[in-house]
Order: sequence, then structure tokens, then C-alpha cells
Amino acid sequence: MVLTAQQKASILVEALPYIRKFSGRTVVVKYGGRAMVSEELERGVITDCILLKLVGIHPVIVHGGGHAIDAMLERLGIKTRFVHGQRVTDDETMEVVEMVLAGKVNKEIVNLINQLGGKGIGLCGKDAGLITASQKVLPASVKDREYLGHVGQVEKINPEILQTVKDEGYIPVIAPVGVGRDGKSYNINADYVAGAVAAALQADKLVLLTDVEGIFEDRNDPSSLLSAIKAADVPALIEAGVIAGGMIPKVECCVFALKNGVGRTHIIDGRILHSILLEVFTDHGIGTMVE
Amino acid sequence: MVLTAQQKASILVEALPYIRKFSGRTVVVKYGGRAMVSEELERGVITDCILLKLVGIHPVIVHGGGHAIDAMLERLGIKTRFVHGQRVTDDETMEVVEMVLAGKVNKEIVNLINQLGGKGIGLCGKDAGLITASQKVLPASVKDREYLGHVGQVEKINPEILQTVKDEGYIPVIAPVGVGRDGKSYNINADYVAGAVAAALQADKLVLLTDVEGIFEDRNDPSSLLSAIKAADVPALIEAGVIAGGMIPKVECCVFALKNGVGRTHIIDGRILHSILLEVFTDHGIGTMVE
Amino acid sequence: MVLTAQQKASILVEALPYIRKFSGRTVVVKYGGRAMVSEELERGVITDCILLKLVGIHPVIVHGGGHAIDAMLERLGIKTRFVHGQRVTDDETMEVVEMVLAGKVNKEIVNLINQLGGKGIGLCGKDAGLITASQKVLPASVKDREYLGHVGQVEKINPEILQTVKDEGYIPVIAPVGVGRDGKSYNINADYVAGAVAAALQADKLVLLTDVEGIFEDRNDPSSLLSAIKAADVPALIEAGVIAGGMIPKVECCVFALKNGVGRTHIIDGRILHSILLEVFTDHGIGTMVE
Amino acid sequence: MVLTAQQKASILVEALPYIRKFSGRTVVVKYGGRAMVSEELERGVITDCILLKLVGIHPVIVHGGGHAIDAMLERLGIKTRFVHGQRVTDDETMEVVEMVLAGKVNKEIVNLINQLGGKGIGLCGKDAGLITASQKVLPASVKDREYLGHVGQVEKINPEILQTVKDEGYIPVIAPVGVGRDGKSYNINADYVAGAVAAALQADKLVLLTDVEGIFEDRNDPSSLLSAIKAADVPALIEAGVIAGGMIPKVECCVFALKNGVGRTHIIDGRILHSILLEVFTDHGIGTMVE
Amino acid sequence: MVLTAQQKASILVEALPYIRKFSGRTVVVKYGGRAMVSEELERGVITDCILLKLVGIHPVIVHGGGHAIDAMLERLGIKTRFVHGQRVTDDETMEVVEMVLAGKVNKEIVNLINQLGGKGIGLCGKDAGLITASQKVLPASVKDREYLGHVGQVEKINPEILQTVKDEGYIPVIAPVGVGRDGKSYNINADYVAGAVAAALQADKLVLLTDVEGIFEDRNDPSSLLSAIKAADVPALIEAGVIAGGMIPKVECCVFALKNGVGRTHIIDGRILHSILLEVFTDHGIGTMVE
Amino acid sequence: MVLTAQQKASILVEALPYIRKFSGRTVVVKYGGRAMVSEELERGVITDCILLKLVGIHPVIVHGGGHAIDAMLERLGIKTRFVHGQRVTDDETMEVVEMVLAGKVNKEIVNLINQLGGKGIGLCGKDAGLITASQKVLPASVKDREYLGHVGQVEKINPEILQTVKDEGYIPVIAPVGVGRDGKSYNINADYVAGAVAAALQADKLVLLTDVEGIFEDRNDPSSLLSAIKAADVPALIEAGVIAGGMIPKVECCVFALKNGVGRTHIIDGRILHSILLEVFTDHGIGTMVE
Repeated sequence: MVLTAQQKASILVEALPYIRKFSGRTVVVKYGGRAMVSEELERGVITDCILLKLVGIHPVIVHGGGHAIDAMLERLGIKTRFVHGQRVTDDETMEVVEMVLAGKVNKEIVNLINQLGGKGIGLCGKDAGLITASQKVLPASVKDREYLGHVGQVEKINPEILQTVKDEGYIPVIAPVGVGRDGKSYNINADYVAGAVAAALQADKLVLLTDVEGIFEDRNDPSSLLSAIKAADVPALIEAGVIAGGMIPKVECCVFALKNGVGRTHIIDGRILHSILLEVFTDHGIGTMVE
Repeated sequence: MVLTAQQKASILVEALPYIRKFSGRTVVVKYGGRAMVSEELERGVITDCILLKLVGIHPVIVHGGGHAIDAMLERLGIKTRFVHGQRVTDDETMEVVEMVLAGKVNKEIVNLINQLGGKGIGLCGKDAGLITASQKVLPASVKDREYLGHVGQVEKINPEILQTVKDEGYIPVIAPVGVGRDGKSYNINADYVAGAVAAALQADKLVLLTDVEGIFEDRNDPSSLLSAIKAADVPALIEAGVIAGGMIPKVECCVFALKNGVGRTHIIDGRILHSILLEVFTDHGIGTMVE
Repeated sequence: MVLTAQQKASILVEALPYIRKFSGRTVVVKYGGRAMVSEELERGVITDCILLKLVGIHPVIVHGGGHAIDAMLERLGIKTRFVHGQRVTDDETMEVVEMVLAGKVNKEIVNLINQLGGKGIGLCGKDAGLITASQKVLPASVKDREYLGHVGQVEKINPEILQTVKDEGYIPVIAPVGVGRDGKSYNINADYVAGAVAAALQADKLVLLTDVEGIFEDRNDPSSLLSAIKAADVPALIEAGVIAGGMIPKVECCVFALKNGVGRTHIIDGRILHSILLEVFTDHGIGTMVE
Repeated sequence: MVLTAQQKASILVEALPYIRKFSGRTVVVKYGGRAMVSEELERGVITDCILLKLVGIHPVIVHGGGHAIDAMLERLGIKTRFVHGQRVTDDETMEVVEMVLAGKVNKEIVNLINQLGGKGIGLCGKDAGLITASQKVLPASVKDREYLGHVGQVEKINPEILQTVKDEGYIPVIAPVGVGRDGKSYNINADYVAGAVAAALQADKLVLLTDVEGIFEDRNDPSSLLSAIKAADVPALIEAGVIAGGMIPKVECCVFALKNGVGRTHIIDGRILHSILLEVFTDHGIGTMVE
Repeated sequence: MVLTAQQKASILVEALPYIRKFSGRTVVVKYGGRAMVSEELERGVITDCILLKLVGIHPVIVHGGGHAIDAMLERLGIKTRFVHGQRVTDDETMEVVEMVLAGKVNKEIVNLINQLGGKGIGLCGKDAGLITASQKVLPASVKDREYLGHVGQVEKINPEILQTVKDEGYIPVIAPVGVGRDGKSYNINADYVAGAVAAALQADKLVLLTDVEGIFEDRNDPSSLLSAIKAADVPALIEAGVIAGGMIPKVECCVFALKNGVGRTHIIDGRILHSILLEVFTDHGIGTMVE
Repeated sequence: MVLTAQQKASILVEALPYIRKFSGRTVVVKYGGRAMVSEELERGVITDCILLKLVGIHPVIVHGGGHAIDAMLERLGIKTRFVHGQRVTDDETMEVVEMVLAGKVNKEIVNLINQLGGKGIGLCGKDAGLITASQKVLPASVKDREYLGHVGQVEKINPEILQTVKDEGYIPVIAPVGVGRDGKSYNINADYVAGAVAAALQADKLVLLTDVEGIFEDRNDPSSLLSAIKAADVPALIEAGVIAGGMIPKVECCVFALKNGVGRTHIIDGRILHSILLEVFTDHGIGTMVE
């Protein structure tokens, strides 16, 4: 369907003020899930980030990479198991996790940015002392904690290199590998890294790409999508079961980021082409905003 | 009709690169005709200019004002006549032309910019030595040249003040009154002022708002609109009668501007709401481009 | 009479320290009365302002224009009357006031500055949102208030554009027309505009050109000119009749300016050639200083 | 043995002028061989680079990593073979080479820099479009060229990111992986990358760490070390067999760098602790200078 | 006699444009003769320099000091004799010349500047490598050349320190002592130093204070003072005896300065109070201009 | 004895961090005693200062000159006597002191700096208002105070000119002559000037060159040199006789400097060649540090 001049004009009149509003600001994007597997969606995400950069908004990408890690571990005959949703990461596994995330997945994303006309630069937590980590602290109830090994949590983000490169026109791409004060590597959940990076950069937006449309008031009613929830209401919503399962840690990242100075946070559907542009440049946005 | 996410996204993907392309560049708009009479169209033109400014593009407005001049001359009982399409401008008429253009029409446009959220500043050719003029030279065939009086042509544009104010966030609004080296005022055609200002600023675009859709290959065939013509082809097109009547001086302004360093020139339909945005931010543009 | 070398030297030794003292500072000049009518005095005032600018001092001119308004109103057959010294200004009168002040008187002064070698730029209160105004509030005793119409008072000066243009070498020339938050025009007394502009710019000096020598202790004794009075003594001087009639609002402007950060204020005799230079660069100054 | 005050002073008097001489200049270090295997030598090299940075000289490290690649290929059961001294690199091998160089060896060096008090940042040729490569062109005599696969040569270095990060206090660490215009990865000899990077940065020095003392006039006479040779003499020295075997490509890198604007080049013995400091800060230097 | 307002105004109107004209420019003053002996004249010269500085013009003072040198030589019982107008300067004499000029006369001038409200800084040719000198070359006819000893001529002026200190608000005061490439001191004629300094600074003016009114066409006719002569006419004027005796080297300094980029040069009467101000700020100037 | 590569490397590893530590910092050196008499030591001190400057550390030299003053006084037949270790300085003596210090000793040091490749600039307390002084206040017990004459003490240091010239690459050399508010000259102890200058510059180090090795716990035991003492312990050490005689005022200078913001102070043996380098760039330093 061809759009009329007035339809086009109305979208421009709607979008242009957002360009001014976010000009010079930072948007941290957690990139993972389905959008990493479909080539069309992948190009959509990268194109969106390049277009943001083009109009003076600074995207910062934090990526996951579970599939690629699994494949390499299998080729090497290393068995993996999960405790409390975390991959138990011994020394041998950590070596593979780091190589795959920082040496393969990260560089592929950077390469795609460059192929599509942007300027990407790949970083892991070791580069420029970006991510200081420590071993993840588990709830007291968990028994076999020693097995976690290199599973880490963020201690501190040093955003200096991100400032430097984003001011020079680069899109930073971050592999969620941290380093302890003792020099050991840690494998960290990418959502948490994205939240901590957004906080350290005092980003205007944190956008988590997921494989769902957002948070529904009633999971069985597709028309009950919540376009916005308040950070203060999150405990009650968890209590009520509206926020549940894998959505809980994502919402917690959002709340952490908001408490630490991030403007707004968004859990959006990475399966929609150009979902990031729609979130940033339309009045209604998409997905669920946690503010 | 509600647009789908993908329709919106497609327009954004189309428009955003133009923002980068024209960021920091200058667009000179000749504002006149129907778009000055309809309040809706007037607000559209001013809104477009404010939105351009918002995203870092610098509009400069040159306006006409024949209707308002006619009205005031009539109230004062001064008769006016036209020679070769030029208003014969004696001393008494010139005083009225200047007061109305610089003291009334110009300030109304500035006021509307401010009311709609922009920052306008009104200038005539005397301010900051902006427009140096001389008496218009008529073709040798014209006999009663002495009657032209204060009808002028541009000798020199001093763009210094325009640079200063546009870099400080203002939208300059220019009344087409020039001043001779002897200090006398001159009444100049607004299209020519717009062309000369665009050249002096080395503008990226000159946009002339008119009351027609553009140039048609066959005036009787509405589907024959020429979306682009080459400056080199203009003489042949005049010869062929494709460019005729009041369109000739407009096209000549465009050719002058192109020869003097302006990127592209556009003759567009000022009767379309938001015609400037559509010209700047869509692949196809509107009206006829002279390049 | 030819001056000797030592007489010349003594004046230079006296004047040069003032150049340093006022270098980079701002002097607001209210220009009106006899000095606007005599061509010799007019050239003197403009030359003084150009010389100030030449040595790094920033003059800002606020002008009146009653004579020119009267003449145009008469040509249009519009009757005018005054209430409490204010011109009753209905819609039709306001249109003329604005056109004449902003489109004729203002541009003539700008033109003279340019002809004499300076760089002038004309502004009214609408340009760059310079003067926000509201309807003048009259004392409770006045009955026919509705008749005032567009007579205004200053609500707020936005000095941004003045800073910009004076730093770039221009002499700003201001027509005393303001604009309400609703977009309506207002006709304001030029003395009040000068005082408010001086305050907004934190000027070092406010100079009001008048048609008298200054304030006399005894009106009948030409030798009793007061060279300086204190703001604190003004109420008593009014009480005593030393300050009276049309001098009262002028002194009130000075007191307002002083209270709002202006360095010194001067009521001087605009009928003396180069009165501004004599005020600024001699130890004794001229006229009456209110400090 | 304790040094006397005068011995210490004499070394300082010798070294300090070099600090000034090289202040703000760039030294590209090819890091490989024995110095990558011994922990003491590794810490020596990294300490030297940190100390250079400390006094305002900008080291840039290019590293190899053959041992680590071999180990990983073996674990994955991938066989490797060499043609003309180049590792035949099919798709599967390239994936491992890239992961190991960019995700493991590179990040270990960066980590050591950070642990010892510097600020390292790891880059491969994909980051910021650093290294554009193409398939290596073999001499016409070689037959099985198709087998080379991903063995590459440098087409172009884009030094922009290196400038940015070294000016901000970082030590860049470069993995010798390039990317073709088609987006494919290439495995490049680290000596060549170092030479090309030095040329692109217009470095003052290129230092190649090797496992020999330098070039000997007579291989069997340890006292015949050549402290300096001229680029112009290289062909004759190869002819004479003085430069032979694995030393030939190293000397060719030096000659290439010199021809492209690098100040001086050095082939030094990486087995000597702090060999870089000794080269930069002593009158005599160590190893063989090619100039 | 009291001056009228119009007389004062006329001088200001005359003087102010010169302030703008010379703002930021440099005026080199050779200070010597009677003006160094009379306390009133001395204070006049220093006051003039401080006033120049006050209005943004940069004076640089080069001084002599023959009287003070004679007095100290006499106290030390050292005999002095003159050859070709030059003081024969052996090692012992040079030591005294340098001490007296750089340690006594120079510091007294600096002190007076500071006492009168300026910021003076004293320099001799050794400071910051200001004056490189060599032994003066005498005409071939002179026989006892070895006797000249430390009489020098300027080889090179390094104006770097003068630029630095004059931009920081200081008035540099220069003692005419130079230093050879071998480190030996040289005693140089102050006029020549002033000319060379003016050339090195590309000064706008060189002003030589003398004990005469200027150059007279007819030495016996006080009304025949030449207010200006052309550099090209100097040889003829010497030939004609109009320029003679001690005036010849002064005029030669002026010609040298003009040939090397100095704007204008002036030989003026230092016995007139405030002679420098009168030269700089009046249309007619005083003394004789060589241009 | 030839040093091995590892010995050289160890000194570099030790010295380089100090370059970074003191980069951009200021070191005030009091230069006097034996080091002013021996040509070898003199060249050592000046070389050290030039090398400091070379690596970005800013030395400021304050010098004495008693020997040269004595010699000139004797040549002039002026007798001198000392009261409480101070030279009684009448008008005639002061004239000589000033000439010799500011015109001879000071310029010789400047000249040597320039000859050895640095950029020196000589200043006395009059230059740029550097040292304001007053007559020295003696303890109440001293009777013949009137005899002190021009013996002065520092009232105020104006470090402005020092900042200017050291930032431009010069090494300032200061003669300890001050000027009273009345314009009179004062002769001040160079140690005190050095301490006051260090305080005014907020120097990192004050280094006093002396003719002893430092402070000894037991004067008769050469092995009892104290490498560091605390300012707080000074009174007790004086009480105990460990600090005695001429060392007392030097230590007092150090304590004054420390109390006024100087980082560390050092009393070192000027008879050791390159003593300043050894103090600044070795872990152990030399002499006695007061901190």
C-alpha cells in the first residue's frame, strides 16, 4: 500500500521532535534471543542502531550468545549444566565462553555494523577495564555453590572507553565477560551487564530485546499488553504473578537502571522488524515501558 | 487510517539518512502566494521550518507581501501601476512598501515562529548591511524606465548576520528591501532575493513555494509533472514553451543559485500542507527539482 | 582656536583610562527628542555610538518616534488622544505604531549607522522574543482604562539576541514594541524599555537623552544644575518639587535600572553635540547622574 | 652489585633526552616468540610498554599466537599444514584462528596490561575497520594456491581508532586478523601487520621482538653483530647470505615501514629482559637497526 | 585655560579611531636622551606607555644609559674612549656596561612602571636568547678595529619572549646588551636594537625619542620642520646635508625597520611632555615621520 | 666500569615512574655555595635543570651571589660588615648588591642555560612585581637595627610571571632583590626567597643546595645521615643540637614551605655532581628530606 503525502508528513511531524529530544543521548540495547538468529531481524537491529547514530543518538550494544557457546562446547566434548538458570562455568568452560563471546559473536556483530555502513568496535569486560566482576552470590538456600565457578556479577563499570569511542562516531559492542580484581574471567548475564552499563553511562534509555511482546496484565489475553508500568508497582506485580519467570530478572534490570539514573527502560519485542526505531521515534512506542 | 508499525518504520528508515545528510546545512525558503493567505498553510510552513531547525537544519525565510502592500496603498489613496510585472515605485510608494514589508509582514511571521515554539528574527536589507541594491536595469526595449523609481536588483548579499543568528538557533526572516550605496531604499522581487541569499550562504537547497504543482511537460496533462530538470536544459524548455510566463523568472532564480554554489533547487507546491518536510525528507520529494 | 599640544595631551591622559574602564562594557542609550529631529545632532549621536563601538564599548540604542507616528496617523485620518500621558492605542492605531516604529524609524537609524561606517541591526520586541509585554496597569483612580488598548509595560526582556549581535560587532537598535504571551502587540514608553534593557544586560551605564540640561536644584537658577543625585534621595527630591513633571518617569527608570544591577545612570542634554562622548570620557561628565 | 651515584646519574643523563625526543611519538612493537612464552619476559615486555606510556610515548602492540592456535586446533581434531611458511587456513581453521587470537590471546595481553597498572584495549582487524585484507598473493611458482584459503595480506590500515585510544591513554593491542571487502576474515602474518600499522601511524619506531640477538655479519662469530644496516644495502646482504631464512621477511617489513614514513626500525632480542627500554633509552640501543 | 565641551569632544572624535586602528598592535619606543634625565619627562614617557597598554596597544621599550655607565666607570677608575662614535669596550668595561644597563638602569625603569600602575618586566639580550650579536664590523678605512672589543651589532632578534609577556599584559623593557654565539657579551647602540626589535615584532610603529624637534629642511629655519619624509628620499637628503651628523644613524634605523615590515617610524622630540601620546593619537602627530 | 644491560634497565625502571609523577610539576632550586664556584658543578646543576625541563618538570632557580658582591664592593672601596649574619646594607651598598645580583650573576646563569641548550630568563624582584619586600624585623634584643638599612624580608610573592614563562618553556632564574611598597630596593636571603617562591607556586619540591651532605644525627658519625625528618620534629631536633648553626634557617625555610603547601623539601649536597637528578629520579634520593 502506497502512503499518501499527508500520511508521510504526519509521521515526520511525529518523529522529528524525538530526534531533537534524544540528540546526543545514549541508548543501551540488550541484543539477544530470536533477533540474533534470524538474519533479517539481525540486519534490522543493526540498521536501527546505525540510523540512531546517524541522527546523533548513541547506541551501545550488549549481546548474549548462548547458542554459539553451546555449539562450541559440544564440538569440544565439554558437558554443560545449569543451576538456577546459570550455566555452571568451570575453568575449561570459561575459556570457551570467553573465546566464543569475545572472539566470535562480538566480532561478527562488529563486522555486520561495518558492512552496513556504520563503525563498530568490539569490547569485552577486560578491554580498558570496562567490567570489574566478582563471583555471583547465590541465595543462601542454594547448596552446590562451588559449582558455579566463573559465573559472575558486575562489581563496577568503567564507562571511560565507551564515552571515548561513542563520541568519535563508533557503536560499541560489548561481550558480557568481566574480570575479577585477581585477573580471573567471569561469565555474566547480558541483561545485567546492559543495566549496569546504562546506569554507568547515565543513558536516556535501556532497551531489552526479548522474544515476547511485553508484559501482559492477563497472559491469556493478547489485548491486555501493559504499555507502561511503574518501578514502584513491580513488587506487587510479581506478587500477583503478572511479572513471572524469565521476565522477573529483566524487570529487575530495568528497576536497577532506573534507580541509578537511567531515564526510561523498555522491554520490547525483538521479533518485530525495526522495533528499536519504533520505540524511539513514535509517540506510542512498543512493548512495555518500565519507568 | 491507522498506519501499521512496518509502514511507520519504512518512512523512518527513509527519512533518517536525510537528517544526517542535511545536518548543519542551510535551506532557503521563498515564502509567498497562497501559503501566506491560508492560516492552516501558514502554520504548516512555519511548523516545517521549526522542525528543520529542531533536527539541526538551518532554514532561512525570504517573504513577499504584495497583498498587504496593496491594502495599505489603497488606505492611503496611493495609486499603483505595474510595468513589465514590476510595481512602479516612487518615493511615496517606497516608504509604504518598506514599512509594510519590514514593519508588518516580517514581524507577523517572526511572531508566529515564536508563538509556535521557534526563535525567529526579522531582518530587512538595511539590517547589518544585508542587501546592497541598485536600480533595476530594464531591457533596452523598455521606454519609460524613469518610472521604475525604487525598483531594485541585488548587488551584493552580506551573509554575516545570517551566519551569526542561524548558528545561535534563530530562524532569520528576510523582507526583500535593499539599500543602495547612496542610502536609498529599493523594492526587490522576493524570488531574486531568495536566490541571491541562497548563493551567498552556499545553501544546500533553495525551495520556492508556488501556487502550482511544478513544471509539466504538457500543461494539459496532470500526469506529466517533471520531477527534475537540468539547468542545462532550461533554455530549450523555455524555447519549447514548457517553461513559460511567471515560471520563467523562478527557474532563472534556480539556475542563478545553482551556478553560484547552491546544491539543489526546488519549485514546489505551497498549497500542500507540510510541503517542505516532504521535499526534504522523502526519497521522491515533491514538485520539480532544478539541478 | 587651535589647541596646544599640552591641552590635547591632557584630554588624552584624562580620557584613556575610561576606555579601559568601560572596555567590553555595555551602554544603553535612550535616543529621542530634539536629537532625533536635527540632522546634525542625529549624526552626532550615531557617530558617538560608532566611536564607542570602535574602542570596544557596546552601545545599545532604544528609540522613540512620536512625530513620525503622528504624521502617519494623520495621513490615514486616524484620530489620536492621550490619557495620563499615554497614547490611547486601539487595534488600528497599534498597526500603524508598529509599522512606523519597526519598519520606518528603526530602519532609518540602522541605515544611518551603516552609512557612517558602523554595523547596525534593527530589532523590535518580537524579534528573538526580545520584549514580552502586558497591558499597562493604571493607577486605581483612572477610570477609562479600557481605552488604553495596546498601551503596554515590560514583563520580561530576553537579552540573548542582544548579547549575540553586540559580541559580533553590531550596534542593536530597538523599537519599543512588545508582544504579549497571547501574541498581541503593545506600544511601550521608550524610556521604560531602555531601563529594562539596561537591567537585563547588566549594563554599566544607562544614558537618557533629553531636551534639558539635567536636574536643577532651583529651576530658575541656571547655575544650580545637580551633577549627581542619589537614588535614595529621589523620593525627597520629588516631594520638594526639584524633580517634577516629565522628569519623574525618567528618574524612575534610572532608579529601576540601578536597583536591578546597572552601574550608573545619566540624564543628559541631547541638544549638545557629542553629548554621549563627553559623558563617557571626561572626568566631570555632563547632565545629572543618578547613582 | 650496588651502583654508585655517578653511575646512576650517568644513565639518567643519557636516558632523559630520549624521553623528550620520543615524547608524543608512537612505537609499534611486534610481540611474539619466546617473549610470549616466558612469564618473566612477558611481564618485562608489558612493563616496558606501560613505562613508555607513563612518560608520554605511545606503544602499540601487535601480537602473534601460533602456539595457542595449534593447541586449540588439536583439541578440536583439526589438522593443519603449512605451505611456504603459511598456515593453510580453510573456513573451519579460520574460525578457530580468529577466536583464539581475538578472544583469547589478545584479551590475555590486555588483562596483563591492566593488572600491571596500564590501560589496555584489545582490537582485531574488524574493530573500527582497522585492517582491510585480501587473499595473499603467492609467487607464480606456487601451485596449490587454492589451498591457502583465508591466508591474507594487508590492503589498508585505518588508523583512526588507534589515534583515538592512544590519545586517551590506552595501549592498543592488535590481533592480526583482517577482513575482506566482502566481509570474510583473513589470517595475516603479525610482522606484516606491525609494519603496516607503523606506516599508517607514521610511527617513529617499529620494534620487532625476535628470538635472536640481531643480524650477524658472520653467523658463526658472535662478535660480528651488526648494530645498524641501511635499507639500501638489504638486497646485497640477502644476496650475500647475511640476511637469510626467517630473517628475510622481518627485514622486508622494516624496509616497507621505512619507505612509508616510519622513522627507524629495530630487530631486537626479545629474550633479554626489558629489551624495549634498552632500545629506546640508551645511546647504543640493542639488536640491529634497519634505517 | 578651560577647554569647552566642543573642544574636548573634537579631540576625542579625533583620537578614538586611532585606538581602534592600533588596538593589539605593537609600538617600539627607543627611550634615551633628555627624557631619561628629567624626572617629569621620565614620568611622562612611562605614563604614555602605561596608557597605551591600557587601551590595548603594546609598547616595548628599548633604553640607553650612557650617563649611568660613565658615572660607574669613573667610580671604578676605568678610562673610556670613543672611536667613530662607539665606546671602545674592553672586557673590564663590558662587565660594567652590562651590570649598569641590565642591573641598574633597566630595573629602575621597570620599577617606575610598576610604581605608576603598569606591569613592567626587564630583559637584556641574554634573557630568553633575545639578542644574538656579533662584533661590529667597521668600515675598511678604520684602522684600530681590535680596540672596539665588545662593541656589537645585532645578528638576530628572537622575539618569542616579547610576544609572550606582552600578551600577558607586561611592558617589556630591553637593555641593549647582546650575546655572541660563543657566549660573550656585546654592547650595542640602543637605536639599532630598537629598529631590529621593531622589525622582529613586525611592529606598527617605531618611535625614537630624541633631543631635537625632528628633521628640518633648513636647520636655521625653525618653521621648516619636515613632518614626513620617504625612505626612498633618504640618500638624497643625506647628500643634501638635510640629514646629517647623529641624525644619520637614527634615520638608517628607521629605513632598516621599514624595509623589514615595520608600519611607520617616527623621530620625535622627547623633550615634549607626553610626546608619545601626541604622536599616536593625533592626526598631525609630532616630529618627523619616516615612512 | 661498564654497566650491564640489566643494570641500566633497572635504573630506567626505577626512574621512569618519577617522570610521570613530577610531570608538569614545579621544583624550586636554591642555587648557591660551592656549586656556584666550581665550573664542573655549575654545569652539572644547570644540566640537571635543563634535563628536568626536557622531561616536562619545571625548575625555578633562586640564586645567591655573596662572593661576587664582595669583590665589587672591594673594587669600589666600600666596606661591608655583618650583623646577626646579615650584611649591613646602606644605600650605596644596595646599589652595588642589586647591580651585581641582577645585572651580573643572574645574567651569567641565564647565559649558561642558553649555552647548554635550555631557555633561561632572568628576573629580579622588581620584574613583574615578583617580590614585594619590607625591612627585615630583627629580634627585640638586637640594638643597632638602624644599621640594617636595605636588608629585607619577603612580604609577598606574585608568581604570575613565573607561571607565564615556565609554561612557555623557560627556566626562570631569580635574583633575591625585593622592592618595598615605596619603591625602595631590599637585599633578601636567597634561601628565604626560594622558600617563599616555592610556596607561592605550590611547588612539589623545594631543593636547597648546600655544602654539606645533609643533617647528621651525630655530627661526628658520617654514617648517621638522616635521610628524612618530620617538620613536627624540628623544634626537638634544634633543642637537641642536631640541627644547629647555619642549618637552622635552612630548615626553617623548609618548614615554612611545607606549611604553605609545598609537597616535599630537600637539603642536599651541592658538591655531588648531578645531585638534583639523583634526588628527583631515584627511590632513595640524597641528602635529608624535610617533610
